[in-house]
Amino acid sequence: MDFAAELKRHVARVEHGLDLYLPAATTRPARLHTAMRYTLEAGGKRLRPVLVLATAELFQSVAPSATAPTDPLPAAVAIECLHTYSLIHDDLPCMDNDDLRRGRPTAHKQFDEATALLAGDALLTHAFALLAESYDAQPTLAHALIRELAAAAGSRRLIGGQMADLLAEKKFEATPGELEFIHLNKTAAMIEAALVLGGLLGGAGTGELAHLRRAGRNLGLAFQIIDDILDATADTATLGKTAGKDAKADKTTFVKLHGLEISRRLAAEHTTAARGELDRLLGDKSFLVALLETMATRSR
Amino acid sequence: MDFAAELKRHVARVEHGLDLYLPAATTRPARLHTAMRYTLEAGGKRLRPVLVLATAELFQSVAPSATAPTDPLPAAVAIECLHTYSLIHDDLPCMDNDDLRRGRPTAHKQFDEATALLAGDALLTHAFALLAESYDAQPTLAHALIRELAAAAGSRRLIGGQMADLLAEKKFEATPGELEFIHLNKTAAMIEAALVLGGLLGGAGTGELAHLRRAGRNLGLAFQIIDDILDATADTATLGKTAGKDAKADKTTFVKLHGLEISRRLAAEHTTAARGELDRLLGDKSFLVALLETMATRSR
Repeated sequence: MDFAAELKRHVARVEHGLDLYLPAATTRPARLHTAMRYTLEAGGKRLRPVLVLATAELFQSVAPSATAPTDPLPAAVAIECLHTYSLIHDDLPCMDNDDLRRGRPTAHKQFDEATALLAGDALLTHAFALLAESYDAQPTLAHALIRELAAAAGSRRLIGGQMADLLAEKKFEATPGELEFIHLNKTAAMIEAALVLGGLLGGAGTGELAHLRRAGRNLGLAFQIIDDILDATADTATLGKTAGKDAKADKTTFVKLHGLEISRRLAAEHTTAARGELDRLLGDKSFLVALLETMATRSR
Repeated sequence: MDFAAELKRHVARVEHGLDLYLPAATTRPARLHTAMRYTLEAGGKRLRPVLVLATAELFQSVAPSATAPTDPLPAAVAIECLHTYSLIHDDLPCMDNDDLRRGRPTAHKQFDEATALLAGDALLTHAFALLAESYDAQPTLAHALIRELAAAAGSRRLIGGQMADLLAEKKFEATPGELEFIHLNKTAAMIEAALVLGGLLGGAGTGELAHLRRAGRNLGLAFQIIDDILDATADTATLGKTAGKDAKADKTTFVKLHGLEISRRLAAEHTTAARGELDRLLGDKSFLVALLETMATRSR
């Protein structure tokens, strides 16, 4: 398996899907649709949608269905819309107040706050509309995908994690338990959902979905710890977003709480645990395993 | 039919449902869940959820199913969550910057901007989660409800209407066509969706859903024109929200564009058209018709 080529293939498919499944920028009102596309098209790693595509392909290759396999692309686009909405709102002045994202001005800088707010709302809503419309012929699948995504994105998970993150920042300190709540929900929830959506699309059974869920949780935790490490050690040009802002905000992070060495060890442990869960699945997991390892050793 | 008693019964059921189907205020993070409940519990007319309940009951009374009828309450709560999210975000400083809503401080005044933003996001997401979870045993129905709500709330409708409204305000003028786009989408979309959701829950057929959709569109247009009339003629204490803010913002409204007399006539025409659509349905529509007429003659 040529990891770089496979990754490139998945990312190209995601980029194509984003163009295909978003309303045209000229759709009335054009300013809103232009703003939705602006932030989506700014790039990024596309980790979540690539996980959806690769996981769906894994299951479809193990147990090819008699009929044409279900296309996972709309679900991959939906999860990227949802992730991007959370970034737009997170960057707003009343939240992290960040001017730079993926090396470009954030949505409220490029447009204005109201447009950014509404573009975020619209991307969140579009994620559910896209799932409902694209899997119209399979309402049971559509329902399962929507149920999973809505739970992962809700007040107990993604949004709850953002709220807890904000409260921890204001307190200038957070306990290890609070930090775990934040990481489990702010970051791991959507990565977990990406793997589970891929499994649902590929026809995974209950036991397989449980392995995917645990793999996602561990990958998500590793991912967030590495994010904290990079914020503390890398520079803005490398990251494509403002570096050192956690320390500047005097924010509690894994690095501040445990130091760099233990943080690195924890990230490695979660990566190993995620790999252990993937090992329990049938089929050729080499791409997913390589993706895990790339995430664990990333520098931005 | 005792309209006041029937309305009271529906509203009481909605209030009960809001308490039942929202996470407890103590759910972690408590500040987020407290803010979600704060705005929902502030009251309001509950027009959209009452429309869901009354429409579902109408169809269930005409064609009682052999099995227990589907409970429309979770869908009624979902649409109120969605409506309330749109109010929270609309009141934010970067949007309408309103301090008062339903006679109480708006969410960002009571909490802070970030909490209000996230509470809005969470209510929007909860609407879809609630539909997916509550109608789990009927995935085809759940899918149809979610598809309808997501389309009505999306970038071409509710959010598109809000964006267009904002752009019209900045321009200090709007053409009649722009104003119609705003009213059709910002206001009528969710009222239309309320009637259609009720129909779907009650087992309405395609033709009946089309009548419900047109009734909702006309009711929504009448509702918004009357809103403009009240903003121009009533006082803040009566409205429970800031009066005269359209004129203050030099905003184009039906009243500014057409004058009070023509606005009143247009509202009456849309009310009559909505009633005409309801007349085409079987069963006892007296509550829905009385509700229409109450809306057409309301003073707040």
